Amino acid sequence: MKFFSDNAAAVHPRVWQALHDADHADAAYDGDAMSARLDDAFSTLFGTECTALWVATGTAANCLALAAMVPPHGGVVCHREAHIEVDEGGAPGFFTHGAKLLLADGEGAKLTPDAIRAVIDPIRNDVHQVQPHAISITQATEYGRAYAPREVAAIGSLAAERDLGLHMDGARFANAVAHLGCHPAEVTAQAGVSILSFGFVKNGGMNAEALVFFDPQLADVVRYRRKRAGHLQSKGRYLAAQVLAMVEGDLWLENGRAANAAAQEIAAACGSRLFHPVEANEVFVVLSPAEQAALHAQGFDFYDWPAPAGAPGAARLVTAWNSDPAHVGALARAIAAL
Amino acid sequence: MKFFSDNAAAVHPRVWQALHDADHADAAYDGDAMSARLDDAFSTLFGTECTALWVATGTAANCLALAAMVPPHGGVVCHREAHIEVDEGGAPGFFTHGAKLLLADGEGAKLTPDAIRAVIDPIRNDVHQVQPHAISITQATEYGRAYAPREVAAIGSLAAERDLGLHMDGARFANAVAHLGCHPAEVTAQAGVSILSFGFVKNGGMNAEALVFFDPQLADVVRYRRKRAGHLQSKGRYLAAQVLAMVEGDLWLENGRAANAAAQEIAAACGSRLFHPVEANEVFVVLSPAEQAALHAQGFDFYDWPAPAGAPGAARLVTAWNSDPAHVGALARAIAAL
Amino acid sequence: MKFFSDNAAAVHPRVWQALHDADHADAAYDGDAMSARLDDAFSTLFGTECTALWVATGTAANCLALAAMVPPHGGVVCHREAHIEVDEGGAPGFFTHGAKLLLADGEGAKLTPDAIRAVIDPIRNDVHQVQPHAISITQATEYGRAYAPREVAAIGSLAAERDLGLHMDGARFANAVAHLGCHPAEVTAQAGVSILSFGFVKNGGMNAEALVFFDPQLADVVRYRRKRAGHLQSKGRYLAAQVLAMVEGDLWLENGRAANAAAQEIAAACGSRLFHPVEANEVFVVLSPAEQAALHAQGFDFYDWPAPAGAPGAARLVTAWNSDPAHVGALARAIAAL
Amino acid sequence: MKFFSDNAAAVHPRVWQALHDADHADAAYDGDAMSARLDDAFSTLFGTECTALWVATGTAANCLALAAMVPPHGGVVCHREAHIEVDEGGAPGFFTHGAKLLLADGEGAKLTPDAIRAVIDPIRNDVHQVQPHAISITQATEYGRAYAPREVAAIGSLAAERDLGLHMDGARFANAVAHLGCHPAEVTAQAGVSILSFGFVKNGGMNAEALVFFDPQLADVVRYRRKRAGHLQSKGRYLAAQVLAMVEGDLWLENGRAANAAAQEIAAACGSRLFHPVEANEVFVVLSPAEQAALHAQGFDFYDWPAPAGAPGAARLVTAWNSDPAHVGALARAIAAL
Repeated sequence: MKFFSDNAAAVHPRVWQALHDADHADAAYDGDAMSARLDDAFSTLFGTECTALWVATGTAANCLALAAMVPPHGGVVCHREAHIEVDEGGAPGFFTHGAKLLLADGEGAKLTPDAIRAVIDPIRNDVHQVQPHAISITQATEYGRAYAPREVAAIGSLAAERDLGLHMDGARFANAVAHLGCHPAEVTAQAGVSILSFGFVKNGGMNAEALVFFDPQLADVVRYRRKRAGHLQSKGRYLAAQVLAMVEGDLWLENGRAANAAAQEIAAACGSRLFHPVEANEVFVVLSPAEQAALHAQGFDFYDWPAPAGAPGAARLVTAWNSDPAHVGALARAIAAL
Repeated sequence: MKFFSDNAAAVHPRVWQALHDADHADAAYDGDAMSARLDDAFSTLFGTECTALWVATGTAANCLALAAMVPPHGGVVCHREAHIEVDEGGAPGFFTHGAKLLLADGEGAKLTPDAIRAVIDPIRNDVHQVQPHAISITQATEYGRAYAPREVAAIGSLAAERDLGLHMDGARFANAVAHLGCHPAEVTAQAGVSILSFGFVKNGGMNAEALVFFDPQLADVVRYRRKRAGHLQSKGRYLAAQVLAMVEGDLWLENGRAANAAAQEIAAACGSRLFHPVEANEVFVVLSPAEQAALHAQGFDFYDWPAPAGAPGAARLVTAWNSDPAHVGALARAIAAL
Repeated sequence: MKFFSDNAAAVHPRVWQALHDADHADAAYDGDAMSARLDDAFSTLFGTECTALWVATGTAANCLALAAMVPPHGGVVCHREAHIEVDEGGAPGFFTHGAKLLLADGEGAKLTPDAIRAVIDPIRNDVHQVQPHAISITQATEYGRAYAPREVAAIGSLAAERDLGLHMDGARFANAVAHLGCHPAEVTAQAGVSILSFGFVKNGGMNAEALVFFDPQLADVVRYRRKRAGHLQSKGRYLAAQVLAMVEGDLWLENGRAANAAAQEIAAACGSRLFHPVEANEVFVVLSPAEQAALHAQGFDFYDWPAPAGAPGAARLVTAWNSDPAHVGALARAIAAL
Repeated sequence: MKFFSDNAAAVHPRVWQALHDADHADAAYDGDAMSARLDDAFSTLFGTECTALWVATGTAANCLALAAMVPPHGGVVCHREAHIEVDEGGAPGFFTHGAKLLLADGEGAKLTPDAIRAVIDPIRNDVHQVQPHAISITQATEYGRAYAPREVAAIGSLAAERDLGLHMDGARFANAVAHLGCHPAEVTAQAGVSILSFGFVKNGGMNAEALVFFDPQLADVVRYRRKRAGHLQSKGRYLAAQVLAMVEGDLWLENGRAANAAAQEIAAACGSRLFHPVEANEVFVVLSPAEQAALHAQGFDFYDWPAPAGAPGAARLVTAWNSDPAHVGALARAIAAL
């Protein structure tokens, strides 16, 4: 009974079907018929003209986005617990040729305009200090917190005012939108986001994410850089197929809702053990080492996690689009019984 | 009837089967059971201890290999028509942080020790000139030419003598080995190759290649750099599955033979039109524009190609593991009838 | 009466003399007779075999040193107020091809083994997190604080234990050694420092610093990288001359003492206004805006500085090797009279 | 009697004077009064508004210029014997983050529009091939050849037509202009040059070159990159002083003429031994090994050089602003007597 990551889940049957439907010779790279449909599919979804490129990993998506907005001598404001800072093996430094991540604070790994200003306002406007060129936020955050439309818009306003690009790492974008119940454009195009890393791998895909450019001209340079980074696959239709399967029938949202519902069922059993509100598919819960051991002994797999101050221990429980209802129920009961 | 590239062909049924067999939760990244089998699978195949890492594209494989052997201030000797020089969008410059490709000549895009010496011997041993650190050869070459074991070994000896790494771009390694009829180790480990980019995508795979390190310690830094380049997929088992399906039952060789046989059938019909010997699955043939048009009119798709001196035009015909015998026969007859 | 920076001071007469003595044709780059004397001069000074290269700026010296010890995918531990982090325009990211600065805390911009461990111990040993490869400390620190020999040695022990390089940014090395009254080797070679950026520009030079390698083989790659960074000057003898003039007659130490003495005279007048002990040639002093204005009105030039908590304002006063005793005395009296 | 390089010559007395005149405290970096005069000085010289930055070496000047015009995924057309390709230790790859040098042919290391088109016209306009973004030419070339105004203008027209930047490596700009007898703007601003590396080190300076931007907005990013490359010296006034001394009184031209005259005197003695026309301060001359030995025995220092086809040997003789007339005469007579 696995709750350690949505990263490892199986592929959705409709994605499999799309992969098989793509199994015939077509033009190589992104010259095929399916890749050609991406712009329209995302423009329809977001209700505004946008350009979309497939890419195999979230790290590549995030870093190609940053490099499109930030010169090598520039900087990107992000949360100090952001995935790009903590868990991408220095990939932003590689793709941007050494640009700097400028680290901001914020509860639940969420940025606010004030937190961003606290980072950028003290920067002297001279060549001795790295100047900010973009902001990157994660939706939902590394603690499963969702930015409401007005929260993104406030950051978007600051970005516009300071002439900064705004990137959204949407590895769990589906979970955030499912939680918020808003239109996906409300937390992206309409809120000032320039580029979205729209994640599918954690949500039923195999190995395809989408980079969505609400400022389409930013995509031009990324086409070159995607190739230069070895990310232009020759059988790109198998990535396009996955992305289209997720987007064209709203499978992304359906899967996000399923994972969220499983997380809520577990959260309800956790009560005061929760140390972050559950707004996506991650449940952060205080569990002593003995309690963790007890759950492991019952067959539940999950990662332990740094505990909040004063707590005896903690764990992260992650649900997925295909979390088995029986397993979810069993985990909820087991926690309630601790 | 498509003969424009092996890049665009469908996925082999046994690869599909392996992908489906991998469709269950397992550890993320390369911590899964299938990825753990790669070292053994390639060690068995090559009859020597080696380390193997999956990666999604040949460009990434090639460039990670180069970066493992060449510092940013160094250089790599390759043919001036090598894929890394001509068709990878500058990816070697990205992965190596600006190392230089040092371009050598040679018939059929093949390097020889003499051609390599002609490039490296004039380099002054001072800090003003970029020093060579590695050699990269393509097997089969960009013109479908195979290096015989003694030819690779001669280059390997030079590499060892000059303390240079030796990389083999094996995008069509299967076709070369199938043509040569040798053991795969004879043109790699036994001939002084340090790292092989073992291609599967052109040969029945979907989106997985293998980096095979005959000097296993070179793999250590590549693990970090693969992540840093956004190439460590979270559901790596779907790449490992493809690679294992190709290697463990010698499907790679079977598919290579099939594509080669189709190429030979076409080559036999071309006679004196051939301007490169056919030693893999590519047929380079003199065809005037009118002749090309006539073939296109009959439904044959292929790329035109720069013609050799004095010829009225030329084309490249590429077969694949699944080239339809009926199409191949039809093309051979059509060319013979020109 | 200028107290804003030692950076802007004039050139010492003995340096001028050395420059003129170099004014004859000799071999270009670092092939001249003076450059050839550097290794010996520094080996003598430090009492141990070392290799030394001239370079025009402290930023280049620091960043070439880091790049010699840290691969692009690695990290360097430094203080969050270190010059390399705050004031070098992202140069470490450029020279290291995107390596990460891992920021530690510490009073007076000084690192301690505990502060370093607090940064590196939580780093998971996997490819998702940037691994530390070196530590960089500043002697004297950005707040004019000197590391005692035992303090450097403690960091050196930790570096050795964790297999990390140890770099010392010695932009004000002379002032630190003058303050400590120790042998220069006690805070470098004998304490585990691998590479020292030995600063002369702030201390009477025109435009030459020295990179001193206590691990001489680290110098080999730096020779290539110095050229590649455009820092191999063709008339290198004019840099070597400056460095030799500073080192061979202990002018570096004499000048450091002079600047320190001037700082102490001012410090003595500051009393409880000081918010850092004065251990070099910088005086950090609480001064309200009105007090600053009063001093400016009397002709004293200096930079204001972020005030410590609760203070109404602050300034940084910097002395130089040639601070005019009359100006120093006047400033001391003016502060005492506030 | 040294004729091996203008690189190693002494510093002109008026440059020394300017250096001493700068020997007083002033604002650091490029905030001083002399640095502030650069834009005006070069605008006056070229008769058009331009921006100028000092930098210590020609390599840094060239590479900062290229990086201002070419993205990391782009390319620069240059001659295959250009200094940036052959003798800068891979510095262009460092400063541009891996952009590619696209090598063209041409007699005397001179490019022509046809030679450039032969390189760029075959480049497919797709992401698989590195696209050209700039052209770099050397004035005078590596063989001491000068581009006439109409020759530069022809390249400038091509650059404008293809939307490419045009950089001029003017390490020996003074010698070229002295030879051509034209206004310096005729071969730069008026001919479509975007950025000029205006060399002074080979022409009487100590360690200062100027980057002159005829498109001033290109300078903005270079200010950041100069700092990031460790090339923003803190006592920049000593570089500005050199540059102003060379430019404001036309010392650059006077020195260029002197060096050229010496070269012409030697060239006149060489007759049919010359294998390049002498249009600057370099004389390329056929000399057998025995003849070279004879000259060396008479006390003449110079480099041997690759001989033209069929010749028994060759040498490069370089004069400088301060070549001793007695030495020059002696060399001319010695060659004539061979």
